[in-house]
Amino acid sequence: MKNELTKFLYGGDYNPEQWPAEEMSEDIKVFKEAKINSATINVFSWALLEPEEGKYDFSRLDKIIDELSEANFQIVLGTSTAAMPAWMFKKYPDIARVDYYGQRHVFAKRENFYPNSSNYQRLMRSLVTELAKRYSKNSHIVLWHINNEYSGNYDGNCYCDKCAKEFRSWLKQKYHTLKHLNEAWSMNVWSHTLTDWDQIMAPNKLGDEWGAVEGKETIVPGLSIDYFRFQSESMKKLYIMERNIIKAYHPDALVTTNFHGTPLKTIDYQAWAKEEDLVSFDSYPTYNEPSYKAAFVYDLMRSLKQKPFLLMESTPSQVNWQKFSPLKRPGQMAATEFQAIAHGADSAQFFQLKQAKGGSEKFHSAVIAHSRRTDTRVFCEVKQLGDILAKVGSTIKGSTSSAKVALYFDWNNYWAFEYIDGIIPKQSYVAVMLKYYRVFYERNIAVDVIGADADFSKYDLIVAPVLYMLDLNLADKFKSYIAHGGNLVTTYLSGMVDLSDNVYLGGYPGPLKHLTGMWVEESDAVVPEHQVKVKFKNGKVCNFDLICDLIRLNGAKVLATYDSEFYQGMPAITKNTYQNGHVWYLGGQLDQAGMTNFFDKIIEELKLPILADSINGVEVTKRVTKSGYALFFVLNMTNEVKPLPQKFLTGYHDLLGKHKVVADLKPWAIKNFVKNN
Amino acid sequence: MKNELTKFLYGGDYNPEQWPAEEMSEDIKVFKEAKINSATINVFSWALLEPEEGKYDFSRLDKIIDELSEANFQIVLGTSTAAMPAWMFKKYPDIARVDYYGQRHVFAKRENFYPNSSNYQRLMRSLVTELAKRYSKNSHIVLWHINNEYSGNYDGNCYCDKCAKEFRSWLKQKYHTLKHLNEAWSMNVWSHTLTDWDQIMAPNKLGDEWGAVEGKETIVPGLSIDYFRFQSESMKKLYIMERNIIKAYHPDALVTTNFHGTPLKTIDYQAWAKEEDLVSFDSYPTYNEPSYKAAFVYDLMRSLKQKPFLLMESTPSQVNWQKFSPLKRPGQMAATEFQAIAHGADSAQFFQLKQAKGGSEKFHSAVIAHSRRTDTRVFCEVKQLGDILAKVGSTIKGSTSSAKVALYFDWNNYWAFEYIDGIIPKQSYVAVMLKYYRVFYERNIAVDVIGADADFSKYDLIVAPVLYMLDLNLADKFKSYIAHGGNLVTTYLSGMVDLSDNVYLGGYPGPLKHLTGMWVEESDAVVPEHQVKVKFKNGKVCNFDLICDLIRLNGAKVLATYDSEFYQGMPAITKNTYQNGHVWYLGGQLDQAGMTNFFDKIIEELKLPILADSINGVEVTKRVTKSGYALFFVLNMTNEVKPLPQKFLTGYHDLLGKHKVVADLKPWAIKNFVKNN
Amino acid sequence: MKNELTKFLYGGDYNPEQWPAEEMSEDIKVFKEAKINSATINVFSWALLEPEEGKYDFSRLDKIIDELSEANFQIVLGTSTAAMPAWMFKKYPDIARVDYYGQRHVFAKRENFYPNSSNYQRLMRSLVTELAKRYSKNSHIVLWHINNEYSGNYDGNCYCDKCAKEFRSWLKQKYHTLKHLNEAWSMNVWSHTLTDWDQIMAPNKLGDEWGAVEGKETIVPGLSIDYFRFQSESMKKLYIMERNIIKAYHPDALVTTNFHGTPLKTIDYQAWAKEEDLVSFDSYPTYNEPSYKAAFVYDLMRSLKQKPFLLMESTPSQVNWQKFSPLKRPGQMAATEFQAIAHGADSAQFFQLKQAKGGSEKFHSAVIAHSRRTDTRVFCEVKQLGDILAKVGSTIKGSTSSAKVALYFDWNNYWAFEYIDGIIPKQSYVAVMLKYYRVFYERNIAVDVIGADADFSKYDLIVAPVLYMLDLNLADKFKSYIAHGGNLVTTYLSGMVDLSDNVYLGGYPGPLKHLTGMWVEESDAVVPEHQVKVKFKNGKVCNFDLICDLIRLNGAKVLATYDSEFYQGMPAITKNTYQNGHVWYLGGQLDQAGMTNFFDKIIEELKLPILADSINGVEVTKRVTKSGYALFFVLNMTNEVKPLPQKFLTGYHDLLGKHKVVADLKPWAIKNFVKNN
Repeated sequence: MKNELTKFLYGGDYNPEQWPAEEMSEDIKVFKEAKINSATINVFSWALLEPEEGKYDFSRLDKIIDELSEANFQIVLGTSTAAMPAWMFKKYPDIARVDYYGQRHVFAKRENFYPNSSNYQRLMRSLVTELAKRYSKNSHIVLWHINNEYSGNYDGNCYCDKCAKEFRSWLKQKYHTLKHLNEAWSMNVWSHTLTDWDQIMAPNKLGDEWGAVEGKETIVPGLSIDYFRFQSESMKKLYIMERNIIKAYHPDALVTTNFHGTPLKTIDYQAWAKEEDLVSFDSYPTYNEPSYKAAFVYDLMRSLKQKPFLLMESTPSQVNWQKFSPLKRPGQMAATEFQAIAHGADSAQFFQLKQAKGGSEKFHSAVIAHSRRTDTRVFCEVKQLGDILAKVGSTIKGSTSSAKVALYFDWNNYWAFEYIDGIIPKQSYVAVMLKYYRVFYERNIAVDVIGADADFSKYDLIVAPVLYMLDLNLADKFKSYIAHGGNLVTTYLSGMVDLSDNVYLGGYPGPLKHLTGMWVEESDAVVPEHQVKVKFKNGKVCNFDLICDLIRLNGAKVLATYDSEFYQGMPAITKNTYQNGHVWYLGGQLDQAGMTNFFDKIIEELKLPILADSINGVEVTKRVTKSGYALFFVLNMTNEVKPLPQKFLTGYHDLLGKHKVVADLKPWAIKNFVKNN
Repeated sequence: MKNELTKFLYGGDYNPEQWPAEEMSEDIKVFKEAKINSATINVFSWALLEPEEGKYDFSRLDKIIDELSEANFQIVLGTSTAAMPAWMFKKYPDIARVDYYGQRHVFAKRENFYPNSSNYQRLMRSLVTELAKRYSKNSHIVLWHINNEYSGNYDGNCYCDKCAKEFRSWLKQKYHTLKHLNEAWSMNVWSHTLTDWDQIMAPNKLGDEWGAVEGKETIVPGLSIDYFRFQSESMKKLYIMERNIIKAYHPDALVTTNFHGTPLKTIDYQAWAKEEDLVSFDSYPTYNEPSYKAAFVYDLMRSLKQKPFLLMESTPSQVNWQKFSPLKRPGQMAATEFQAIAHGADSAQFFQLKQAKGGSEKFHSAVIAHSRRTDTRVFCEVKQLGDILAKVGSTIKGSTSSAKVALYFDWNNYWAFEYIDGIIPKQSYVAVMLKYYRVFYERNIAVDVIGADADFSKYDLIVAPVLYMLDLNLADKFKSYIAHGGNLVTTYLSGMVDLSDNVYLGGYPGPLKHLTGMWVEESDAVVPEHQVKVKFKNGKVCNFDLICDLIRLNGAKVLATYDSEFYQGMPAITKNTYQNGHVWYLGGQLDQAGMTNFFDKIIEELKLPILADSINGVEVTKRVTKSGYALFFVLNMTNEVKPLPQKFLTGYHDLLGKHKVVADLKPWAIKNFVKNN
Repeated sequence: MKNELTKFLYGGDYNPEQWPAEEMSEDIKVFKEAKINSATINVFSWALLEPEEGKYDFSRLDKIIDELSEANFQIVLGTSTAAMPAWMFKKYPDIARVDYYGQRHVFAKRENFYPNSSNYQRLMRSLVTELAKRYSKNSHIVLWHINNEYSGNYDGNCYCDKCAKEFRSWLKQKYHTLKHLNEAWSMNVWSHTLTDWDQIMAPNKLGDEWGAVEGKETIVPGLSIDYFRFQSESMKKLYIMERNIIKAYHPDALVTTNFHGTPLKTIDYQAWAKEEDLVSFDSYPTYNEPSYKAAFVYDLMRSLKQKPFLLMESTPSQVNWQKFSPLKRPGQMAATEFQAIAHGADSAQFFQLKQAKGGSEKFHSAVIAHSRRTDTRVFCEVKQLGDILAKVGSTIKGSTSSAKVALYFDWNNYWAFEYIDGIIPKQSYVAVMLKYYRVFYERNIAVDVIGADADFSKYDLIVAPVLYMLDLNLADKFKSYIAHGGNLVTTYLSGMVDLSDNVYLGGYPGPLKHLTGMWVEESDAVVPEHQVKVKFKNGKVCNFDLICDLIRLNGAKVLATYDSEFYQGMPAITKNTYQNGHVWYLGGQLDQAGMTNFFDKIIEELKLPILADSINGVEVTKRVTKSGYALFFVLNMTNEVKPLPQKFLTGYHDLLGKHKVVADLKPWAIKNFVKNN
């Protein structure tokens, strides 16, 4: 079966090259005890594989693969291209990225190559060619893991002169003439008019940094946003280079790279996913995150290709790099792994299988801990999960999810929204999205997280908050969706700019104005000292935070009006009927109670499918197996006892449980119900 | 009439070069509707005017000026020299400033030339010469606006090698010998003794930065303070170059540059103002600033030349670069514009007349907004203000202010006071000044804000807080002022150092000691955990904050003593009679109640003129017209209804109002009373 | 008498070169009035001594030494090598250190040479040779003060290429082969494997900086910790160079350098002290520090050589560089000087004898103040202390201290502990130590602060908290100590890694496991939102903060168990008997009440010697004179009246007081009791 793994993977990152060779057989015994069936290897071994340029040494890797193959492991093979060896920095100092401060980095770390380096590209291609030649026929290698967490951290972009040069070529292709570029970027402002392509530079702290705001931003948003696009595409080209080499040797090989972040701002995952066979994701929620944060990213990952993804990394208990990292409580590890599965993962993979004894991550938890014992709590839980997955993994694998609600999220807005020099402090795009995601999560309503290329027609409702940046094509797509009976919720700071960050004149929300049936005359900043009251037609009074749009009607119906400030009585929330569909407009950021009041009515009107009654801390999701069974995942995402949602008390069978369904969910309980036939 | 504008200006910054040419006639129609009579143009057009070196293109500017001239606008013509074109950075990278971190900047932004660049100077002179040649005879150009907000932000100084070289010449002129320099800067401390002029460097992060304090300070205060002086003078030279070129072509041209900040630390506005025909100022108070902050800077601006100034920039509603920028409330825009007028402005000018659609300031409010509509609240208010100014502008224009109280503020102290490595954390010089300014503002007592060159004899009272740095000439000037019956209030941290920051030995306040009749043995730091009690002779007990001077008497009378700590009973506040005058000394920073107790007595004793009774949030100021009428400006600077000060209920006529004077001031109400004859 | 001063020193830093020569005789008169008998000179005079390379001018220094010698002062002679002259930076720019950000510093400051500079070394050696030749025979010079506060501030390390080169040599000597180095630093992690020595770089912001944590840390802890060792040793070599030159000219000369910090992290004072004749220390507690903080460092300084040290710098009243520096209260100066003496100092020396009139420290207090008067409070107190020391200094001098309790503190742990990328935020090593030191300080139990080279057998109890890093030798030393009847308290995060920061496998606390009779399976992070309850066998319930070890017993007895969380009931605190000794293990950071509960029992069991009953704010210490008298120092370290500990009411004689002992201690009172015979 092409494009699909044969097994549900249980395993994770394994680095035997950090240990004496003779320990490996003992390790494998321990893994088998926990029913681990997969290992991700060779993610960081370049220096060992190629100790000097062109001299390859695969002896150790051969043995590792042999030993895992003999043990019948599903091998996920890394290409080792994320961390460059020391000799490479020494020989080709220009392979290292230059940061926003104009400084070229030196040997160290990982994910610090710059994407347009011809030296890096040549050396990377050689290594991957060697790997593909040597290993692509090994049937135990079920997946190729290219590079690692591209872009590395939240500022992985490179700002070197070579990148700037490539950027100019990229811009020429996009804008053709300097005149167009000057217009797109509004360069007559502050006499920035360019008269030669060579005058274009990468964003730089010493150049156009805009002191009035925080972060790595220039005075020219058009340039900075284009630079994000360019860097994401440059990185993607590297990925494609590696993939194509592997596919040249083994056209049926499955290829992925591990995404990360919440999600990562610098990499447009929606564009990248098209180039992958499988989406995979590294998940590290902090101890005090609400459970909907992880769920949101999982739903995004599943929606990227509208099919199951892999949970490529997660931690058995603690990580060592968050501010506070308490132990995962008894049961919590399994529940958090199952949360990913419930939202579409077809694997449970750990970083890492064996705890390092040195280096910066030595206090990161692992399946085999420093104590080297298997009578520990963590190992026992890993083993229990192994037993469960051995039982139900193959049933779950390949089962699909579906949703009638979509949350609109795209990288143009990620970049542009966090770039606004506006009347309130910078807001996090993801944080705004989570406010809306949460509404549906808490009501057990399935959500897809979609971008501009999605099929809108599948959804009964699309929620598109702060849809700040959009082109006319996307506006048309929404128009057509609504005209044909779709339902859209949008908000303040929507429909404002085109893809070059130039404002649509004539009143916000620009090209969406005809859909919303209103326009915004002014937007007030809600200062921390007070909130602004908003009164719904049903009499309920809530608050707006951050922004209050002063709305002028143009056909829309008023759902709520301001109840304080000089604009008391003006419309705050509206609803418009456009052909066969409806468009809601929120003129500000509703508080929690307001969100409930607003969305509950829509949910009712549209009869959106609710999987189970809400119980705080308990999430219910559904996947449908290939053979048509509905699998309900009921997870207690808290450390307390919770009631089981009523509906599962009768008529369902818990694949993981005893015969009798009980009314209480223990802390971190996992239930996997199917209809009892 | 030389040195004076003929009209009260109503208008602001206008950048038609950012828009299609054909929009301009429509814009002008809109401006006229609002009775706007002036436009500031060409502030940032260098790249368009000179797309490559020596090739000038004035075609667009010609048309703009023609169109505005035809419409009979008062044109304020920018020289465009603040933002250098991209090609200039490319061709002459050394035109960009080097920052305190030793890094040379690259293309971008504005106000980032370094003042001693010969390339910048040559190119700037050529452009200004072309402009002066071409436009100086145009009678619609009523004012030349040189460059823009010199120094840019709060660290506009340049620290490049060329500046360092010029600095050495500057120092040679000042100190003549290295011996004098070593003494002035106390260079034997820490073996800093210089043996060659070449060893002198600009302040630099990697050099003498003093880790124990925050900010860009070196271990050698004498050097750092001299560097401030040198940079302010270097910038001033640039201004003078531009001015002289313009005057060479049109000796009667009026010339200004727009000051900014609260005020700006890096530019000695008192020295600069002497080189200007008119002082102009850009004013951007934040939403939560007390109204006396803006008033203080306006009074400073007026005092610079002791004549009306221009409000060159202000915002119709929101700016987009403050942390929170709520809408100006109905009426607030007019009230804030009128506050500047009340304190001496002869214009109301906005940034900007037309809202940009791209770039970093696109969400800054404007007269013509993105919506392009004139039925909006903001436009209506702009129009209402236009009506008012059309009615009273010519009456107000040229009217004068007078004050019997002066607050002493100079740039030597701005630089030196914020440089003290003392026993308490760094204090803001402006923040200290505002504490004293506020006392008089809240009592409707007019204040001038003066420096060392002012005529002291005009004032019944001079308040000179933290007069830390002064030379013997200034000390003598105060002595003579007091001897002839003047009254001086001074405080802790006064009379301490000479202009090189060397302490006057023999007891603080050094050369003022004979005037104060006391000296300071020790100064305690008041830690945040507690305040120190001070008991007035009238029994009232207040607190000292920050510092408590332990005072030894030498003829002065004790007005208050400490009432806690081991120095309980020692003098805290004194008053001395010196010949025909009096000197008060405050040994610490009084709390609010203490300030009232202290100053009310002085106000009473000196019978200082109070314009009206205090009403919290209502300010009353006075200007006297050329024909001798007193204009009282009564402004409600709050969003609440306030009572009108009693005295205006009868016998006055409101130029802006109906016949009947009413007792209530609406939110943001403006009243402009004259005596009813 | 070799290796010992003949007098108890009272004096401090004196810089007559900052003043006209003729002032010196007047200064000396004033010092004599205060019974000051010593001056530290020539600490920062290089630029005056050597105004250009190789041209020396000792004329001024000759006169200073002559004048002080005539006045019979004990001269402490600085070598002036800490602050390099301007010409030296100009001529040899490479003498300046390169910081962690890769930037080479320029002229300025002090302590900013890099230790491996051959230019610096050559010039330093020449100067010191000249000084030694010229002055080593002067008998008034009682002590040589080399350089000044090596490393300067808390990041005095140099990261230049020359240092990196020396670092590689240092590493070759330590590890011999790259294979060993790669293993020690765990370089196979993230493909860091080195294939050539030249690939080793100094830590650098642009290299391996680890973004997940704050501070100057790399991803390779082994490298960073070795770099700390290397830099401390490189600096020590400089010290030894100077010392050896002086000793070559005068073998009996006493030599020191002034240590500082709380203590300083970058300099391993335990290793350095071996190279000194006398330890000396600069002490600047802040106003709001608890008094045990200074006591801790004094005890460390005394323990370094197990003999009296010098208080080389302290302030008569205020410093000018702390955030808030209130005046020392009446009596406070004497009490704080006496606190150092009580803990082992044989001097009381000030920075500084005469207040500078310029430069950055001009507002630092001094014996001769800006006022130049001697009728001031501060001068009177200096004089009173002079009288006291003239009376008792010679009695105190050379008296010894002894302690039955030792706190274990070493620089390997200082470096490694603050480097842990663990499950909780970075903790300060000193702050942890202070928690334990405080227990004994508050109970008037004498404590030595010892490192790995100390003689453990002297102590009834050793407290070794967070003994994170240790080699097997040290583990054996503890084992032998306990086996022979010693008592050890250790805690969480102990016995974890070897000297290369590699984890001891098989369960924490690694090589101490057999001593503690338990091992740690997991360590929970205690998040700020809650604390974890711990119940002692006596029923008392306390809290753990930061970390909770989940303990598995292996012979130890349980003293307390967890009383909340899922590990409720598991052991939290244990005690093990190992041969003739005992080992306590604290699985977390006890709160204040818990510490009392825990240690009071141990103190009782071990009958640790208590010098006097506890009175909050009153400390009691003991020194024994050479002639065998016990001197009890009873100090009221508060600004309030306190009771005298009972035991001193009868049978003791106060060397400093009247005949009758009174029951009250005035604020900052000093008592110096001997048994009345």
